[in-house]
Order: sequence, then C-alpha cells, then structure tokens
Amino acid sequence: LSRLFAEHDFLAIPVIDAERHVKGIVTVDDIVDVVQEEATEDIQKIGGMEALDAPYLEIGFASMVRKRAGWLAILFVGEMLTATAMGFYEREIARAVVLALFVPLIISSGGNSGSQASTLVVRALALGEVKLRDWWRVVRREIGAGLWLGAILASIGLARILVWQLLFHTYGDHYVPIALTVAASLIGVVMWGTIAGSMLPLVLRRIGFDPASASAPFVATLVDVSGLVIYFSVASLILRGTLL
Amino acid sequence: LSRLFAEHDFLAIPVIDAERHVKGIVTVDDIVDVVQEEATEDIQKIGGMEALDAPYLEIGFASMVRKRAGWLAILFVGEMLTATAMGFYEREIARAVVLALFVPLIISSGGNSGSQASTLVVRALALGEVKLRDWWRVVRREIGAGLWLGAILASIGLARILVWQLLFHTYGDHYVPIALTVAASLIGVVMWGTIAGSMLPLVLRRIGFDPASASAPFVATLVDVSGLVIYFSVASLILRGTLL
Repeated sequence: LSRLFAEHDFLAIPVIDAERHVKGIVTVDDIVDVVQEEATEDIQKIGGMEALDAPYLEIGFASMVRKRAGWLAILFVGEMLTATAMGFYEREIARAVVLALFVPLIISSGGNSGSQASTLVVRALALGEVKLRDWWRVVRREIGAGLWLGAILASIGLARILVWQLLFHTYGDHYVPIALTVAASLIGVVMWGTIAGSMLPLVLRRIGFDPASASAPFVATLVDVSGLVIYFSVASLILRGTLL
Repeated sequence: LSRLFAEHDFLAIPVIDAERHVKGIVTVDDIVDVVQEEATEDIQKIGGMEALDAPYLEIGFASMVRKRAGWLAILFVGEMLTATAMGFYEREIARAVVLALFVPLIISSGGNSGSQASTLVVRALALGEVKLRDWWRVVRREIGAGLWLGAILASIGLARILVWQLLFHTYGDHYVPIALTVAASLIGVVMWGTIAGSMLPLVLRRIGFDPASASAPFVATLVDVSGLVIYFSVASLILRGTLL
C-alpha cells in the first residue's frame, strides 16, 4: 500500500468491501507513520535483532533483552563453527603462528563487504527496486564489485606487509609467500562476502522469510566461518613446502 | 519537517517567505518520498557504506564501487590493528594455540552485540526518541543489557566447552581455566560492545557527524580490536602458571 502512495503521489485511498461500499479512507499521513515504522523494523533487523515495536527508552528492559538475546544466541552458536574450523587447522597454526595474526583482519573484511551487499539488496527489495527475477543481474554486479573491492583491500594489505617487513622485519624470511597468501585470501573472501551477502536476502525471500533477517551480523557470521576455510586453504596451497 | 508531519498528522504545510507570502506547499506525499529516502540513506550507512542516492540496479557500477570502497578501506585499515594486537600476544598463542581457536568467536560476539546497540541508538536518534541529554539513561540500559547478554552467551560457551571436553577431550587437562577464560572474556567483550555501540552514535552526533556512520561494520571493527585486548588480558590473568 505504501508503495502505491510513493509511486502515484496519491493523497488518500478509499477502502471498499466486496459490495463496493466505502469502509474507510487511508490518508497519506497514516502512511508516513507506517513507512517510518516499517523502516525502523527493517533497520533493527539489519542490526541483528527482532524489531522492538516500541521506542528504545520506553520498551521494558526484559523484553528488549529478549528481543536481542535470540538472534545473538543464534549467531553465537553459528560462530562456534569458527572454533571448529580453526580446530581443523590447529597444526598449521602451531607451525606458523603468523597465520593466526591475520585471521580477524581477513574474516572481518569478508563480513564487512557482505554487510554492504546484504544491506543494499534488503533495502532494494523493500522498495521494490530489485525483484527476485533480477537475481542474475545482482550476482553479476556483486561478483564485479567483490573483485574490485577485494583487489583494493589486497593492495592495501600487501603494502602494509611489505612496509612493516622493510621497517621492522616483522614477518621473517617467508614474507613474500605470507603476503601473497593474505592478498589472495582477501580477494577470495571479499568476493565470497559480496556474493553471499547479496544472495542471502533473495534466498530468504524465495523461501518465504523476511529478507531483512539477512542482517549485517548474520552475513558476517556466515562469512566468518567460510572465510576461515578460504584463508587456510589458500595458506596450505601457497605455504606448503616453506612455512607449512 | 518530516517529524512535524509525523507528530501532528498534517496533510500539507505552506512555505512562506520573510514577507509572509506563500511560496509553495509541501504535501504529505512529498514527505513520504523524503521519509523513504532518508530511511534508505540511514540503512545504507548502517550497512557500512556511503548512501548510494540511486536505485541499486540503476547506479553506475564505478560509482557504486567507489561508495563502498571508501568505508571498506577505512574499516580495513582500522582492522589492521587486530594484526598488531595479536602480534603482541604471539608468544602466548605459540604456547597455547587453543587460545587462537576462540578468537573469532569472542570478538564477533562483541561486534554483534555492538551492532545491535548502535543500530538501536542510531534509529532512535533519527526518530527523535533519544536525545543527546539521555546519554546516561542509554549507558545504564546498555550496561544492564550487556551484562545479561554476555551472561547468556557465556553460559552457552561454557556448556559447549564442557560437552566437547566430555565427548572428545578436545581441550586437554586445562579445560577448566580455558572455559573460565572464554566465559569471562565473553561477558567483558559483550558489555564493552553494547557500551561502545550505544555511545558511538551519540559521540558522533555531539561532534557534528552523522550518527548513522556508527555502522554495524564500524562498531564491529572497533570492538574487534579492543575485544582482542580484553580476551588476551583475561587469558593472561587466568592462565598464568598453567598454560601460559
């Protein structure tokens, strides 16, 4: 209904029953309230919680904590998979502790690029700018964007490792393969972040869920787990024979 | 102006010049458009990028990448501090690799609780539900919420470590201090996340920036870096003499 108003600049829409009797009128000021409420709900879901349905300072403390605890606990259980995933690579970490240092940097880059992508698609879906049938156009855009964004972060990462190596000799003799591992992982993780982040809202809508549940923290958690696998796989490939 | 409409249910507001001549009329349907646009801008900022100012599928590829790359690069540079922070604890990690396994789990929990808090406060500020002078009420609420949410996650984390220990003997003889380290860090990191996440938008507004820049990824990055320091400090305290 609010989309009707937005698209046609109507001031009021009559509501009629089956016999075409007017049952009431929806005016634009009702719609302003609804639009604000819907945006608030979407924003809170994007922030990774249930919609509060009440102003922040007025909602009861217990019900606010409940509405935040649910998603937080789900995300926590999902994020536990990172401990499992890292457990698989415990031997590699023990051999090359330097690998562990870059874990937060790399997985968070995937989470950040994924948050951007999911937020864009969630909002575009809510406004009707993107439909389910546009999924292929979205994927193509996000693969391209991921490649560019990944390359930008990889260059910054490369520069940082080389400068630190030059100044402090931080990364020892194997700094070239380490730098390559970080750069290649960044491109992979950021691309995976943009693809997963943009597709998740579409998948949720397709199976009947609210796309806005593809929150920034949800996407970040998803990409954290898979980002670790990408990172350590790349590391095994590049560092086999030297550090590992 | 849109708040005037929302609060008083006006249908149109005349715009007058200094001599009280009517220059035009702002109707509610203009306002619906503005409200939608403002919400879109806030949502995109909360997702960690500049507002696109154009529909997702219509904006040029290059300008979309530019609007995402800026924040992504800033967050990346900020997140580099995690590599520095972990570098300080390289010796501890080498001695107790098990510590590294929980790094993503613990820092992301802080990031998630911080995203919730900042999103709530950003939206409440935008709607005028929270003013700068309410900061102390907000802090008190968030300290309480952080304590509860942290305790909930800590219990889940404790349960998980104890069950895995029972089933697979995953964590060796020192599983009790390890479990305590994880639980205590979770409470500390989640509380710090809710406090930092809720205060950042208020601080930004106070110094004249847009509170919506306190995006979920921005808060996550901030809490990632400080969360590492909390985690390894707690670990040094509890594990000194056993694992470290």
